[in-house]
Amino acid sequence: MKIAVVGIGLIGGSMALVLKAQGFASVVLGVDSNESHAAKALAGNLVDAVTDLAGAVANSDVVILSAPVNVCTDLLPRVLDLVDRQVVLDTGSTKMSLLDAVKGHAKRGRYVATHPMWGTEFSGPEAATLQAFKGRANVICNAEESDEDALALVKELYGTLGMYPVYMDGYNHDVHVAYISHISHITSFALANTVLEKEKEEDAIFELASAGFESTVRLAKSSPAMWMPIFRQNKENILDVLNEHISQLRKFKSCIEKENWTYLTELMEHANKIRQVLDRKS
Amino acid sequence: MKIAVVGIGLIGGSMALVLKAQGFASVVLGVDSNESHAAKALAGNLVDAVTDLAGAVANSDVVILSAPVNVCTDLLPRVLDLVDRQVVLDTGSTKMSLLDAVKGHAKRGRYVATHPMWGTEFSGPEAATLQAFKGRANVICNAEESDEDALALVKELYGTLGMYPVYMDGYNHDVHVAYISHISHITSFALANTVLEKEKEEDAIFELASAGFESTVRLAKSSPAMWMPIFRQNKENILDVLNEHISQLRKFKSCIEKENWTYLTELMEHANKIRQVLDRKS
Repeated sequence: MKIAVVGIGLIGGSMALVLKAQGFASVVLGVDSNESHAAKALAGNLVDAVTDLAGAVANSDVVILSAPVNVCTDLLPRVLDLVDRQVVLDTGSTKMSLLDAVKGHAKRGRYVATHPMWGTEFSGPEAATLQAFKGRANVICNAEESDEDALALVKELYGTLGMYPVYMDGYNHDVHVAYISHISHITSFALANTVLEKEKEEDAIFELASAGFESTVRLAKSSPAMWMPIFRQNKENILDVLNEHISQLRKFKSCIEKENWTYLTELMEHANKIRQVLDRKS
Repeated sequence: MKIAVVGIGLIGGSMALVLKAQGFASVVLGVDSNESHAAKALAGNLVDAVTDLAGAVANSDVVILSAPVNVCTDLLPRVLDLVDRQVVLDTGSTKMSLLDAVKGHAKRGRYVATHPMWGTEFSGPEAATLQAFKGRANVICNAEESDEDALALVKELYGTLGMYPVYMDGYNHDVHVAYISHISHITSFALANTVLEKEKEEDAIFELASAGFESTVRLAKSSPAMWMPIFRQNKENILDVLNEHISQLRKFKSCIEKENWTYLTELMEHANKIRQVLDRKS
């Protein structure tokens, strides 16, 4: 099967690697507006050739859109214009903007909206890895709007990556990811800025930063070029969660200010319940 | 050498394990007000015998205080009252309360204030592990107030654990750990409560929670019994950091509300600088 990957970074590059290694893809064509990324992808054997968008669509069976979400929202209708038999999927962290962009498009059925729940704080083709995706959920949104054969092929593709499908409508997807992914990134970015702002002694950060700090602040290394468009597209849901999070932090602050140690303990005991959720996964 | 461990949980238990395995300790005596913890420590061979505080001090060369910080603040002056030649150290995450509690004590010199920068979200003797401590910093506070021989022995002990020493006064220690450890725990607890509050569909959390979410919320599993006394003793520093953190979150919120995507990108690019700090460690 011939695959086109549009946006050859962490996600697109890892897909290319795994699908080739698993024999799902015979040829991978790469498209990237960043020439340095395209060159690295070619040099690193993530793709067999680099081409333009029209050439990639014409010469492939599956088109994977794995550019930043704003770029995908622009590209998706144009790609569907070019499609006849091909299947198109995207891997973005927001879904409503994409679904809205192709609502009523004559080729809507050829598109399957997906979100593989995997990532790292690294980006670009050099971050691509064969260790990606496995054992994680892949969300498929508004599956009923896709052609049966397109859906079947996309399920097979994600099965090859070792992912299991979760079905959800785009609206609910965008609400849930605000809680389960987007807010974690905002808190990490803000925590990094908090420490960088007040802790002028960089050596002290370096010497003392323990594993706990590293794990909460790790996502602050993430790419602004990828995340700004996500925050933009999921604005309303993210503001909801951010308001709730600030209000939860204010509860901790108020307990400490008022020395209400009993209520502070209760807040922490409540937070401990997240254990039940996380431990089901491991 | 005979070691007494007062509070046989994650830290004290791990110290007992490693010091015995490395041949630094010939006998480990355990003291714990929690009978179930004491029994588990004995059954798990973390300690050779369980005894009372006076017996442990009388029959040991080094006394390790690794109970919650409020308990250690109570115990330390009483332990120094019982000491003649023994060396006493604590492992707590706050230092000023302890240092104040024994200021001017006749046996002050026998005490060395330390804080090994290692931990996990787990607690109790069953969390003790031989994998602890190695390669991390151990902070030694107000070293000049300790007897030379006591300081030398404590440095040897932490060297045996594979830790390197960092010297700091207690005041600066408490300021730095507020940034580098305590705030991470508060943001994780608050993030867990944010998600548990709004995300009533527990299955969605379970299905969608990606590695990013798990890493930012991991510390929310931590023990309230251990952390409440830390937040209490380091109240003023933590409130400083918490105010700064809430103000940093408000900047993100304001950018998203006002659709100021340029400034939002700048905030994230600034946060990316934490990479330089974290990458020096790995």
